[in-house]
Amino acid sequence: METTNVKAFGTDSTTAPLKEMNIERRVVLPKDIEIEILYCGVCHSDLHTARNDWGWTSYPVVPGHEIVGKVTKVGSEASKLKVGDFAAVGCLVDSCRTCSSCKQDLEQYCLNGWVGTYGGQDKHLGGFTHGGYSEKIVVDEDFVLKVPANLDLAAVAPLLCAGITTWSPLRHWNVTKGSKVAVVGLGGLGHMAIKLAKGLGAEVTLFSRTPGKEKDALSLGADAVIISTDDAQMASVAGKFDVIIDTVPYVHDINPYISTLAISGTHVIVGYLGGLEPILNTVPLILGRKSVAASLIGGIAETQEMLDFCGKHNIVSEIEIIKMQEINEAYERMLKSDVKYRFVIDMASLKK
Amino acid sequence: METTNVKAFGTDSTTAPLKEMNIERRVVLPKDIEIEILYCGVCHSDLHTARNDWGWTSYPVVPGHEIVGKVTKVGSEASKLKVGDFAAVGCLVDSCRTCSSCKQDLEQYCLNGWVGTYGGQDKHLGGFTHGGYSEKIVVDEDFVLKVPANLDLAAVAPLLCAGITTWSPLRHWNVTKGSKVAVVGLGGLGHMAIKLAKGLGAEVTLFSRTPGKEKDALSLGADAVIISTDDAQMASVAGKFDVIIDTVPYVHDINPYISTLAISGTHVIVGYLGGLEPILNTVPLILGRKSVAASLIGGIAETQEMLDFCGKHNIVSEIEIIKMQEINEAYERMLKSDVKYRFVIDMASLKK
Ligand SMILES: [Zn+2]
Ligand SMILES: [Zn+2]
Ligand SMILES: [Zn+2]
Ligand SMILES: [Zn+2]
Repeated sequence: METTNVKAFGTDSTTAPLKEMNIERRVVLPKDIEIEILYCGVCHSDLHTARNDWGWTSYPVVPGHEIVGKVTKVGSEASKLKVGDFAAVGCLVDSCRTCSSCKQDLEQYCLNGWVGTYGGQDKHLGGFTHGGYSEKIVVDEDFVLKVPANLDLAAVAPLLCAGITTWSPLRHWNVTKGSKVAVVGLGGLGHMAIKLAKGLGAEVTLFSRTPGKEKDALSLGADAVIISTDDAQMASVAGKFDVIIDTVPYVHDINPYISTLAISGTHVIVGYLGGLEPILNTVPLILGRKSVAASLIGGIAETQEMLDFCGKHNIVSEIEIIKMQEINEAYERMLKSDVKYRFVIDMASLKK
Repeated sequence: METTNVKAFGTDSTTAPLKEMNIERRVVLPKDIEIEILYCGVCHSDLHTARNDWGWTSYPVVPGHEIVGKVTKVGSEASKLKVGDFAAVGCLVDSCRTCSSCKQDLEQYCLNGWVGTYGGQDKHLGGFTHGGYSEKIVVDEDFVLKVPANLDLAAVAPLLCAGITTWSPLRHWNVTKGSKVAVVGLGGLGHMAIKLAKGLGAEVTLFSRTPGKEKDALSLGADAVIISTDDAQMASVAGKFDVIIDTVPYVHDINPYISTLAISGTHVIVGYLGGLEPILNTVPLILGRKSVAASLIGGIAETQEMLDFCGKHNIVSEIEIIKMQEINEAYERMLKSDVKYRFVIDMASLKK
C-alpha cells in the first residue's frame, strides 16, 4: 500500500528518551479521513507505554491518543467531515464492528480486540499503529469525532481520553441532577470527573489524601473536599455517595471509600490495573448492596455525546501547553504530579 | 407489658446443644398478628448464631427465621390477615420505617438498624427477639407475609430466607427472559437461585467444584453444569453470564468467575462475609466494565412479590422435614452439606 512519510516523536527502546523520527501513514482510503494534528494531549498511558511499564510495548512507539486537528483529506466514500473541519481522535481507531459489544456502540469492549490509536495492530500497513505525537494521522471516519466549534481546541484534546474515561462510568451508573458523586484523586482524570459530574447536575465531592487541594477543587466545580486520611471527615460522609469515580493509578485501599457509598452505590475504578490490596471486605458490600466496578474509556458514540455535552456546557480540560521537544521533561513532571492538569502538545512545534 | 409463655427450642451457651425452653411473647397489640407456627426452615445463620460463630450472639437464643403458620389472633387495627389465614415471617420483624431505605421498601438496609426475627432488639419486651423454633410468634402486620394458597406450606418456609436472598439480587440486577445466569454452590441458597432464575426465564448454569451434581442441578431446572475446577469447561463459558449469584458461605477465589461474566456483568455475593482472598484483580473488571457486588436478603414488599411469583410458578424449596427434637443432629448434617436442600421443622413435634 502506498504511504506518506510524516514526522513524529517516539522512542525505540524502554530507556531512550523520545526523539524525532519518521513514520508512514497510509494513503487515504475511501472511508478514511486524514487529519493534520494541531494538538495532542499527554496521557499517563503514553509514558507507561513508552517505558514499557506494562510489558506489552512494541518499539518503535509513537504515543498520543488525545488528538485534535483539521481535516486535510477525505476519502471518496467518507461523508462525516469535510476538508477544513476540526476533528478529533481518541484511544481507538478501529474495532471488529461485528461483535455484540461493537453492535451496542461499546467498541472499547470489542470481543475481538479493538485497535488502539498507538501500539495496536495496523490492519492496513502491518506492524503497529502510531499515535498523535505526529504531523498527520489517517483514520476511518467511523472512529473520527466532530469537535464543537465553540471550544478551545487545545483544551479539547484531553477530553478524548481523560474526559471519556470519566464520562462513560458517570453515564453508565446513571449520574444525573441531584446525584451524589465523589471523585478520588485530582489529576488529569479526576479534574475531568469533577467538571463532567458537575455538568450533569451532581453534587460533587473530591477525596484527597492531603490538605491543600480545596481551592483548586472548588474552582473546578467541586462542592466539597474530604481528606480521606481524616477519620472524622470520612465519617461525616458515611453512606453518602451514589457513585465514586476512583482515578488513582496505583494500588490503594478502597475499603474506606466503600463506607461512604449510599445503599446500592458503586465504586468505579478507572485508573488502577492490578490486585485490590489490602483485601476487599464483603461485609460493607453486603450490608448495603454496594458494588465495586471498573470501566475503560468509552465507545465512539458515547465519546461524541460527551464532546457535544462539553460544547453545550462549555467544558474543557485545564491544560499546560508544551512544545513537542519538551515531552521528556513533561514526562518527568507528570511522575511528580507537577501538572495542572494535563499537558497538551502544540504540534506546530514539530514542524520547525 | 402482659405476655404469654410459649414453648421454644434454643440454647443458653455457645457449646450447649439446643433444648426445650420457655420464652415470653407479647400480647397482641393493635397492629399485631399472632401466628401459630406450623413449619420453620433451618438456615445456616441459625447454626452460626446458636454457636456464636460471628461473635454477636446474646443468650439465650431461639433461632428460626423461615416461619410459616396460621393466624390465631389479629390486633384491633390490623387488617392484612384474619384468623385462620396462613401467614409467613422472614428475617425481619421491624425496622425504623422512616429512613430513606425503609421509605424505598428496602427495610433490609434500614439505616437505623432493622430488628432481626431472632437476636434483634425487642422494642416491646426489652432484651432480644426470639425466632421461629417456637409455638407462636407475635409480629407487626407490616412484617407478616401472605402465603399463596396453592403451595405446600412446609416447602414454602425456606423461601422466607433462602428464597428472598437469591430473588432480591436477581431482580435488582434485572434478570429476565433470556438473561444468562450462573449460580455458584448448590445448597439451600443455590437450589433456590436456580429455581427462581429459571422461573424468571433465564438460562441457568450451575458452577460446581466437583462432578456429581449434574443430575440434581438439571432436575432443579438448571440448563448446564460447569465444573469450576476444570479449565476447559471454564473457558467454554468465558464472557457468558449477565449475573452470577455466588452462594458460597466461606472464603473462595472469585477471580475465575469474573472471566465468565459478560460485558457489564455482575458477580453478586450473597453467602460470604469477609475479605476477598485471593486478591481481586481489577484488570478483568476494567476490560469488561464488570462489577463485584453483594446483597442481603430482601425487603418486605419484595418478599411478598417473590412469594406471589412462587405461587404463580409453583415454586417451592426442596426440603427434608424433621422434628424439633432432631435439630442438633440436623445442624451436624448441615455442616457436612448432608441435606437436599433445606431442613424444615414440623413444629407440631414441639407440642408433644
Ligand atoms: Zn489515555
Ligand atoms: Zn467488536
Ligand atoms: Zn437465613
Ligand atoms: Zn429504616
